[in-house]
Amino acid sequence: MKTYLECIPCFFKQALEAGRLSGADEKAQKRILDEVALNLPEFSLASSPPETAKIIYGIVKKITREADPYADIKEKSNKLALGIYARLKKKVVSSRDSLLTAVELAIAGNIIDYGIKNTLNIEEELKRILDREEDAIRKEGSSIFDYRHFRAAVKRSKIILYLGDNAGEVVFDRILIEEIKGSGRDKNIIYAVKEKPVINDALRKDALAAGIGNSASIISSGVDTPGTVLSFCSKEFLKIFKRADMVISKGQGNFEALSDCKRHVFFLFMAKCPVIARDAGCKLGDIILLHKSR
Amino acid sequence: MKTYLECIPCFFKQALEAGRLSGADEKAQKRILDEVALNLPEFSLASSPPETAKIIYGIVKKITREADPYADIKEKSNKLALGIYARLKKKVVSSRDSLLTAVELAIAGNIIDYGIKNTLNIEEELKRILDREEDAIRKEGSSIFDYRHFRAAVKRSKIILYLGDNAGEVVFDRILIEEIKGSGRDKNIIYAVKEKPVINDALRKDALAAGIGNSASIISSGVDTPGTVLSFCSKEFLKIFKRADMVISKGQGNFEALSDCKRHVFFLFMAKCPVIARDAGCKLGDIILLHKSR
Repeated sequence: MKTYLECIPCFFKQALEAGRLSGADEKAQKRILDEVALNLPEFSLASSPPETAKIIYGIVKKITREADPYADIKEKSNKLALGIYARLKKKVVSSRDSLLTAVELAIAGNIIDYGIKNTLNIEEELKRILDREEDAIRKEGSSIFDYRHFRAAVKRSKIILYLGDNAGEVVFDRILIEEIKGSGRDKNIIYAVKEKPVINDALRKDALAAGIGNSASIISSGVDTPGTVLSFCSKEFLKIFKRADMVISKGQGNFEALSDCKRHVFFLFMAKCPVIARDAGCKLGDIILLHKSR
Repeated sequence: MKTYLECIPCFFKQALEAGRLSGADEKAQKRILDEVALNLPEFSLASSPPETAKIIYGIVKKITREADPYADIKEKSNKLALGIYARLKKKVVSSRDSLLTAVELAIAGNIIDYGIKNTLNIEEELKRILDREEDAIRKEGSSIFDYRHFRAAVKRSKIILYLGDNAGEVVFDRILIEEIKGSGRDKNIIYAVKEKPVINDALRKDALAAGIGNSASIISSGVDTPGTVLSFCSKEFLKIFKRADMVISKGQGNFEALSDCKRHVFFLFMAKCPVIARDAGCKLGDIILLHKSR
């Protein structure tokens, strides 16, 4: 996805938020915004938002010298989600179409991220997800949900690359990965995380904490961008990305980074930003399963 | 009010909005944002937001060469509000405390502005205001409402300076001005508008279209800032501002510009922005009558 002009005010908002979380005082916060501003004329609208975000979070890090301001939030998210793992699992196992329910929950798990950023009550939101009737998770109005293709692809694929998104959400990913793994002994699932901290994106330790290591091999994509920007990925990752039978991409950041890439990808995300909703052709808040094939 | 860091992303949002309304294509919109960005390091947080807004709207005007992008919106707002003038008047006349109702409506008229910017249904909003029970307009939760002081000041004041805010809202101001004028023959009311177009702020022609000329003399403050920034005002206006027995200041922009000034002022506004609500000590959406005396 290209960068839209509406993303620009949002870049400043994100820089301010990250600066504050990193403990910057008002003067340092202004310095962060000033430096983002000075870089703005160089931002290309042809780049994807995560590419620009790399510059922005780099500025915050340089000025505050805080490498991982979201560390506490990530840990809290993992704990919260692990606390409901058993109930999520029960919900999947007892449903008529367990793969469908696992997919829906994996996308809905994205709400943790949203909750943190908008100070919603995360526990309330999770409860709401858990209390929903079977098949009702996305009935609130999703317009794009290519589940039939997804199910067929899972069935025929041996090497499945799963691109993680945020901490906390990794526990929901685990549920879906276990469901896929359970559908056939031949499945080789590779779960990709970010190389270095950026916002609340999951790292290797978050995937390990969530227990994903039992069902998938965990690799780093090599990036520290909030989305898997291919030009920054490691050679090892790119080889897998190219050869995998199926790529499952979680979250908005990965959609932004990969929506124009040259292979078929299943994008699973909650449309939490009006610009992304417009780009994807859905409504704000929709639970999306979008199959892009090139 | 000082400029808060949260105002900075909002400045970019406003520049983009004004650029689009001025017919700028995507390239010109990016040029606008780039030029705002290049000026950002010079923005002082000690300045009030309307002072900075002057620079921003100046950039939009320079690049788009469109002097009054909100002209159509202003005309539409005036027409809409004039269309319900008779009903507003009836509501005031038939109420137990007509001055109180006129004050409440004058503040609630600020919703027109909000409606335009957030594409709410303005007519719906106006209907909601009109349908409310007497005294219930601000009962939705206002925390600051110095009506007793306001009523006493109206009673004892001869020269009253009324600082207008937006087009459309001027019709609501007319209702309050007529109410004040009706309370005593000795009242000399002066209604101040902006000198040149800025956003949807009322100009002389909007005040005239609203029919304010029958109850008040209309003057220009001399500014083209979205708020009466004293350092930019004309000498003539400043003389009146200093000598008036009472100053009634409408809208957020005027609060931002004058909340730290050295005379007592009655601020009437709807808190439509979280930063202003926090600064004033109220909740978002509150209908505020704030008496500041120095």
